[in-house]
Parts: sequence; C-alpha cells; structure tokens
Amino acid sequence: MPYARDMPSDAAPLPRGPYAKSAARRAEIIATATLVFGTHGYRGGSLRQIAKQLDLGLTTVMHHFPTKVSLLAAVLEQEDAADTDFSARSARDGFIPSVLAIVERNLERRELVRMFSIVSAEATHPEHEAHAWLLERYRAVTETYTAAIADDRDRGRIRTDADPAALAGLVISGWEGIQIRWLTDDTDPVAAMRLLLEGLLHPAPEL
Amino acid sequence: MPYARDMPSDAAPLPRGPYAKSAARRAEIIATATLVFGTHGYRGGSLRQIAKQLDLGLTTVMHHFPTKVSLLAAVLEQEDAADTDFSARSARDGFIPSVLAIVERNLERRELVRMFSIVSAEATHPEHEAHAWLLERYRAVTETYTAAIADDRDRGRIRTDADPAALAGLVISGWEGIQIRWLTDDTDPVAAMRLLLEGLLHPAPEL
Repeated sequence: MPYARDMPSDAAPLPRGPYAKSAARRAEIIATATLVFGTHGYRGGSLRQIAKQLDLGLTTVMHHFPTKVSLLAAVLEQEDAADTDFSARSARDGFIPSVLAIVERNLERRELVRMFSIVSAEATHPEHEAHAWLLERYRAVTETYTAAIADDRDRGRIRTDADPAALAGLVISGWEGIQIRWLTDDTDPVAAMRLLLEGLLHPAPEL
Repeated sequence: MPYARDMPSDAAPLPRGPYAKSAARRAEIIATATLVFGTHGYRGGSLRQIAKQLDLGLTTVMHHFPTKVSLLAAVLEQEDAADTDFSARSARDGFIPSVLAIVERNLERRELVRMFSIVSAEATHPEHEAHAWLLERYRAVTETYTAAIADDRDRGRIRTDADPAALAGLVISGWEGIQIRWLTDDTDPVAAMRLLLEGLLHPAPEL
C-alpha cells in the first residue's frame, strides 16, 4: 500500500499547483469512501456511489483509484500511519497510558472507527479483498503490543505473570468489541478500556 | 420478532404435510440468508441473491419473507432462542463454565457467528434496520450477565470487587473481538475467553 507516501502529512509543507489539487481530490475521495464503506461495508459500497456523493463523474474517481480495491487500500492506510511510533511512546509513557491515548483520539474519528469495524468483520472471510491486510494487522499489532507488555513488566510498571502475547491478543480483541459497543450506544470506551487493561495487566500502584 | 414461535424446535414433534414443507423452505431461506448476510453484510445482500443461490424464484422467497428486513428478523432470531436458559445454567454450573460452553458451541456455527459479527458492525449505525435489535441485545445480555456475575460473587465462586455491570460489558465486548479474531485466523476462542474471564473475574481456586 504505497499510497500514503504520496499524501501531504501535517508536518510536511503543502504541495502547490496541479499536484495540490490532485492531492486534495484524492483526500476527498478517501474521506467519502470511509463514510460509504462505513455504512454499506466494502462489499456493499461502490465507486459509483462514492462518485455520486461527491458530485463527481465515475471516470474522475477512477482516474485516482482505477479499482475499488485500490481505494480500499488507501482507506485502510489511514490507520497504519497513525501508529508508527507506538513502541517509543509505550517505552516512555507505559503501555496502558499509550493505549488509552489512542482510544481517546479515536473518540474524534467515529466514522473511521466504524469503517474499520465493518471492514474487519467482512474481511474475516479468506476470500475478502482485505483479508491479507487484516491478518497482517493482527500480526503486526500483536508483535508490537507483546513487546511493549513484556517491556513494561520488566520495568515493574505492570505485575502480570500471564503470557504477554496472549495478553496482547486480549487487549486487541477487547478493544475491538469495546469500540463496536461505543459506536452503538456511546458506552464510554476509555473507561471500559481502562478497566480491561487494569484487570488484565495489574499496573503497579504508584502508576 | 415473532417468527421463531412458528418454527419447529428440536423438542417439538415435526409438523407434517404442507406446513412441514413450508417450514422446511423457510428454514432453508434463513440458512442461505445467514451465509449471504455473513459475506456481503445485510446492506450488501439482497433477496434476489438469496433466491438465486437457492435456485428459487424471487416471488417464492417473498412469499415467506415479503421484505429483506423481515428475513433479517428471522436470521437474527437464531441467536436469541439458544440463550433463554442462560441464567439457570449459570446458577447451576457457574458463570465462567456457562459462557465457555457457548463459546465452544459456536465453534460449530462459524458462518452464523460471522453473520452476527458483520451485521452487528453495520448495525452500530442509528439508521440501520437492526440497530434497535443490537441495542436490545446489549441491554438484555448485559442484564443477564450482570445478575449472573453478582450471583457467582455472592456464592464465592468468583472474587472480584469490580462493578458486575462493567464486568458484564467487558465480557460481552471481549467475546465479540475474540470471535472476530477466530473467524480471521483460527486463534482459539475458548482459550482466549478462559484467560479473559479468569483475568477479570478471579475464580476461586477450587473451581
């Protein structure tokens, strides 16, 4: 998924001229696709629907994203970019506060979270276009969280003797369900995640 | 959702004659709808698609289910019926073994679980046809599990001092995520749920 490298980030100077216009159009298409996939699922959504919501021709959308799956890749890429420095943050602030910071940030990205919830459920199917992405996401996040939990234990920040990889899996799975619940009836996901993390990881009292 | 009352259960004698044929056809449509909604979501699936997979005319399907939403109600009803005696089982066997028994039973209902995962994620939307169902499901299951956890604590089976309602919420949410993980890469959901339940509820050693 090389798409994100072409996008202006908050830190980089904004491109100007025709490139800027093209980048803005791409960003607009991705934002609308996030809403459409987050309502109808990836399978239920279509490029035509996305074009229509933007009042664009289908060919304009297809100029940027020739296939629905290329647009899916760009939509899914929105999460990956956000979490590249997790390990460093966890080493500095601890695993529990670092996870809770993401849960809190997600409060402002409701439709993005909904899109991830729906596409993940769809992508459990081995033949789904995002199945490989979902497998790799579980693998990568489990690896990162396992190392962060082991590190926190070694530093005495948490006092669990369960297997760090199994705990990482429970944190990831619990989080998924907690976000679905939040999307449904606004049950506070930060409070729920805090209770889950403290219940499973036993933070040292002074933290 | 009054549909389930018309269906023969395992315990009741099977109906005969034209009624039996009609009931079999309904069951067949529900089973196929479970697969279609579990692949394309409710929004991405259609009565036409379901009819086609069964090699039936659309009018035949619509004779049994005049609208897609009436079929959704019947599809969702499949879960509710299975859990009516949870409180009695939990009082007898304890909350943790009773939950684990359902997780184990679900190992044989993979496509049903997948359909529930996808439709639940879709139904987080307030305008989704199953949103009221999802709200009521959370409410009812939380109520049942809260009472069962409090009861187990009063009997000394578990030793947690966290709020039973908050714990019930975490069990339900964790379970949802654990099932999505299982559907994706076959991570053992029974082992994961056991670790989650024991980590959160602290069963008394002899149990």
